[in-house]
Amino acid sequence: MSQALRQFLFSPQSVAIVGQSDDVSKTAGRPLKYLRQAGFGGRIYPINSRRKEVLGERAYASLAALPEVPEHVYIVAPTEAAIEAVAECGRLGVKVATVLADGFAEAGPEGEAREARLKDICAATHLRIIGPSSLGIVDLRSKAMLTANAAFDEPDLPVGRILAASHSGSMIGALLSRGKARGIGFAGLVSVGNEVDLSLGEICEATLDDPGIDGYMLFLETLRHADALRRFAHAAAAANKPVLAYKLGRSEEARELAVSHTGALAGEDDVADAFLADCGIARVDTLDGLIEGLPLLKRVPRRTPGGRKPSIGVVTTTAGGATMVVDPLASRGVAVAMPTPETLARIRSATGIAVKPARLIDLTVAGAQYKIMKAALDVLTTAPEFDLIVAVVGSSARFLPERAVKPIIDCTGAEKLIAAYLVPEALQALAALSTAGVPNFRTPEACADAIAAALRRRAPRATASVKKHVAPSPARLFDELEAYTLLDRLGIARAPATAIDIGVTRAPALPFPYPVAVKALAADIPHKTEAGGVELNVQDDDALIAAIARIASNVGSRVKRVLVQPMQTALGEVLVGYRVDRDVGPLVMLAAGGVLAEIYRDRSLRLAPVDLATAQEMIADVRGLTALAGFRNRPAGDLDALARTVVALSQLASAEEPVAEAEINPLMVRPKGEGVIAVDALVRLS
Amino acid sequence: MSQALRQFLFSPQSVAIVGQSDDVSKTAGRPLKYLRQAGFGGRIYPINSRRKEVLGERAYASLAALPEVPEHVYIVAPTEAAIEAVAECGRLGVKVATVLADGFAEAGPEGEAREARLKDICAATHLRIIGPSSLGIVDLRSKAMLTANAAFDEPDLPVGRILAASHSGSMIGALLSRGKARGIGFAGLVSVGNEVDLSLGEICEATLDDPGIDGYMLFLETLRHADALRRFAHAAAAANKPVLAYKLGRSEEARELAVSHTGALAGEDDVADAFLADCGIARVDTLDGLIEGLPLLKRVPRRTPGGRKPSIGVVTTTAGGATMVVDPLASRGVAVAMPTPETLARIRSATGIAVKPARLIDLTVAGAQYKIMKAALDVLTTAPEFDLIVAVVGSSARFLPERAVKPIIDCTGAEKLIAAYLVPEALQALAALSTAGVPNFRTPEACADAIAAALRRRAPRATASVKKHVAPSPARLFDELEAYTLLDRLGIARAPATAIDIGVTRAPALPFPYPVAVKALAADIPHKTEAGGVELNVQDDDALIAAIARIASNVGSRVKRVLVQPMQTALGEVLVGYRVDRDVGPLVMLAAGGVLAEIYRDRSLRLAPVDLATAQEMIADVRGLTALAGFRNRPAGDLDALARTVVALSQLASAEEPVAEAEINPLMVRPKGEGVIAVDALVRLS
Repeated sequence: MSQALRQFLFSPQSVAIVGQSDDVSKTAGRPLKYLRQAGFGGRIYPINSRRKEVLGERAYASLAALPEVPEHVYIVAPTEAAIEAVAECGRLGVKVATVLADGFAEAGPEGEAREARLKDICAATHLRIIGPSSLGIVDLRSKAMLTANAAFDEPDLPVGRILAASHSGSMIGALLSRGKARGIGFAGLVSVGNEVDLSLGEICEATLDDPGIDGYMLFLETLRHADALRRFAHAAAAANKPVLAYKLGRSEEARELAVSHTGALAGEDDVADAFLADCGIARVDTLDGLIEGLPLLKRVPRRTPGGRKPSIGVVTTTAGGATMVVDPLASRGVAVAMPTPETLARIRSATGIAVKPARLIDLTVAGAQYKIMKAALDVLTTAPEFDLIVAVVGSSARFLPERAVKPIIDCTGAEKLIAAYLVPEALQALAALSTAGVPNFRTPEACADAIAAALRRRAPRATASVKKHVAPSPARLFDELEAYTLLDRLGIARAPATAIDIGVTRAPALPFPYPVAVKALAADIPHKTEAGGVELNVQDDDALIAAIARIASNVGSRVKRVLVQPMQTALGEVLVGYRVDRDVGPLVMLAAGGVLAEIYRDRSLRLAPVDLATAQEMIADVRGLTALAGFRNRPAGDLDALARTVVALSQLASAEEPVAEAEINPLMVRPKGEGVIAVDALVRLS
Repeated sequence: MSQALRQFLFSPQSVAIVGQSDDVSKTAGRPLKYLRQAGFGGRIYPINSRRKEVLGERAYASLAALPEVPEHVYIVAPTEAAIEAVAECGRLGVKVATVLADGFAEAGPEGEAREARLKDICAATHLRIIGPSSLGIVDLRSKAMLTANAAFDEPDLPVGRILAASHSGSMIGALLSRGKARGIGFAGLVSVGNEVDLSLGEICEATLDDPGIDGYMLFLETLRHADALRRFAHAAAAANKPVLAYKLGRSEEARELAVSHTGALAGEDDVADAFLADCGIARVDTLDGLIEGLPLLKRVPRRTPGGRKPSIGVVTTTAGGATMVVDPLASRGVAVAMPTPETLARIRSATGIAVKPARLIDLTVAGAQYKIMKAALDVLTTAPEFDLIVAVVGSSARFLPERAVKPIIDCTGAEKLIAAYLVPEALQALAALSTAGVPNFRTPEACADAIAAALRRRAPRATASVKKHVAPSPARLFDELEAYTLLDRLGIARAPATAIDIGVTRAPALPFPYPVAVKALAADIPHKTEAGGVELNVQDDDALIAAIARIASNVGSRVKRVLVQPMQTALGEVLVGYRVDRDVGPLVMLAAGGVLAEIYRDRSLRLAPVDLATAQEMIADVRGLTALAGFRNRPAGDLDALARTVVALSQLASAEEPVAEAEINPLMVRPKGEGVIAVDALVRLS
């Protein structure tokens, strides 16, 4: 089906435009104009119920009136008429309908009902739908310009080998035009709209066996159909076709906007980070990084788990310009490496310059000279300590690219990849680099952004298919004792605990010594401390009875029991959590403990389950855990036991219990070798 | 002098080029070529001791051989010859010499000796020097092209009203060429090099009465001559000429590079932040933000202390595109404001669109239409809740700018300023916006960067002239008791303390009850805890004697006394510090206490002294202090007392003691109304 679907989507034999206007200044006037302008070779049927002719061509009254059933129908009619047209497409046996109209999920309950109608039509027929709210789908090779985006009124469409897919309709115009200005071409572009039927992932996946496409540029607003995106990403990795994504929603403000704009609920941003990383999709933070990053991604190998951190060398004819790249690289956690003494000696001998032992191979002193730049690059691209070379060229790049830009081009095919940033405006030199296949960047920020994204990228993780997502409600909460039973089954150490009925007048014999902690035991008061349901450091029987009485009076009569546990001491506290996300499925989370960690939002997330190496990475991700890793001669905590606990909790992803959420808070971390121990836990079933 | 200096720098009557080459492919061949190419109107004297003619013009053998003493000499000869030429300039009475050669401070002790020679020449004569390591100084109006930067080989030099000044020589070429591509012109550009004599600040200050300059673009690598920069910034603010700066060194890696590159020691980045903010200089993080930001800065009023946070409204024809700006704005702490119900009603009525109540005024549903965009902008630019409007235009901007770009232009002169980001590549529309004076941006990141920088900017703070900077050594440390004396004088509450000789066998009567803390008392063990010199919670006389003995045995015989203090309880701990920075002078610092705050590097810095409002801002800056501000119903700390303490410690900046550094760590913060109390202090005199 995929190949047939691809053909109906991107190179249909026949297309119809429902609602095609006679007025090219209107949005609905554009598709026919674009199709003719580009020279689409298939059959085109404009449909306009009120006119016999549009833009000088015969207009048909309806889809039913056409001499054939078109393969792909672009519906640019208003909402209600569009739904009618979709229904007709279904009846007639049209393969694909792309729907421009809005007024669906983003428009409240009424719109949701309209979406449901579209879904019903798909379910009842063989019709596949792109949209609604789709600005269209375009193939620059077949010239199937099924779009109403104003930026496609291009005299010279930039044909290339990239497929761009976007939740935002405007962005396909931005990518096309900005790409064109950089000599970057596209095989096709698609605005996926509300994804009522075909999702972004499914559309991309349908193109994977297209030999004319060798990379993907994604503009994401939501992870609505994460499963399809993941399937596509895995297949793309297997086909060695890189996928680069920009995703809106770093900020809460932006996520709030996504809700009102697309009707999609936006998840937290680090969930998106974890998901995309898990799929092996590289994520950039800048628009230019998205547009310029694919050539780099094509050649930077994926990082392997446990492999050494990739190492970058920087060579330049302008130290100030190069530092502009080093700064944003560092802020993204990518450090530039020092050349080894051997490499330094080789550079000195090859260039004749007394290059200083610094992270920057600074050739400024020589001015920009071909021989010197080439000699330095020849050494760097064969230096074993570097995985990637960044070449930063100063003012000579503008009018004298033969000096320091040509040597970069002449190193194409070298052992190590070179990426280039040119400090002045130097369009010709950039174009020459692009032609030669050298990844190049217009701004230091995009350069750093794309490099960091490429270096972070891994192979997609081979996970069992994602656990069926659970609805957030109705929920059932475990009480703490039930929660401990779950931890016991997972093999997670927890404090001994015994339950005592509220109202006892004599303390029973405890299976552990004082001091103890006493906590209200009930499923429905997860915030026990705030409710006055916790007493710590209780020292003896009398104090125990008094503590139980205070708790009873604080929490009210619905609580019947308290839980008693021996007090634990440890070096520090952490929070380990598990939950099933609506979009991406099971997640495991590790956070530093305490109020400061909460304020700093210092946590690490991964798709669950995770292995030990991944759990160790998570520990390294959480900055606050530095305090438990021997920071400033402090005693080190048992981080190995912590890693094992993260792994164990993450196994809930494949456990039978339908657990929606589990949280150990705190998990006490003892000194190295002494383990970790859970002293509170919360579990919610779905 | 300033006006005369300005003339000698930027529009000399006569110039000489020492070391001018006959070969235009060489760096030293460029200045004469550029001067002739641009049509410099003054007298030009090429000097080349080995040729009678260069580039077809008569060459002179030496400066002494010229028919007049030139006002400005650009010395492009190699290092030693350059020093000789400088000496000759001094002897002859040349006004300004600009020196290209390197091999000075960045080249170690030998280079420093060379710099000293240049300084001696300046001191002994009336000569002023730019450089060394200066790629030159250029005035695009007088056509004084005293530069060897390869990017100045421009057929059409973009003349404008901006002065660009840079520590990096390459950057003047980057700013010129990148500016030109955006229709941004310059009055002049200067590469200040090592600033052995004329500093960047002094050069800029000399141009302040130039009516042809109305804004400054600074590319900074160091704050070497902070005083001059501050003087300039104050005068620029008084003259209402905005100053926008990009400063390298956000990362430690970049600061390390600055050391090896320019020989300047780079300070910490938040010191630079504090200094620039204090001077009223706006700082951007992106290169495009620097190039595109000035038109915005010209019109955004400076924030007033205690004034409300400026409020931004965003209107768009593409929600996805607009969110690309909202995201980086939010990550820079700038939130987009909701329109009030009144404004929303006015927009709905004016546009006829049922705009949703969201932070984004989303006109997508209407397509791009002049009337609708204009109507929305008319409402927004008169809405009282907004200080700045951001208009984001989608694909129509490329070929149909009359739809949604022209309305922005037609609002020039409106009550509120509009800044524009165009989502597709749309050079013509951008040029039209620039011509109309509308701040416009090519990337969402630069747009957000410049807006955040402009909104943060304040009036320069009227401080007494900066305290003479103290050398970091020789230092004298106070012991803790002496340090308390200083706190007492500053009016900072501290724990009572009494000193006891080590070796006592009976505990003396204490002026406060047990439990107490016992600490080794000596100036030279500031890290008492690590040295085993602290015992806490000592409960009685016997324990006190035992604690003293343990401390004595840990810290050795050089320590003669211990300090005893009553134990303090509090809600939390902070660190308050003061130090005199080599570059910018006295600083006051506030940080959250404890190991996590150290790991997160959570602190706020200001130039000292500060007033109460500034101290309160500092408290708001430190994220960890949220924990003491009533976070999640926790008891609130006495943040007013904390603010007063910050103010008090910052007064060291104007105190008589030559204090180089003072640190209260920890300062215990008690519940609201109960004050704060210092329980340890460290003071270092200069």
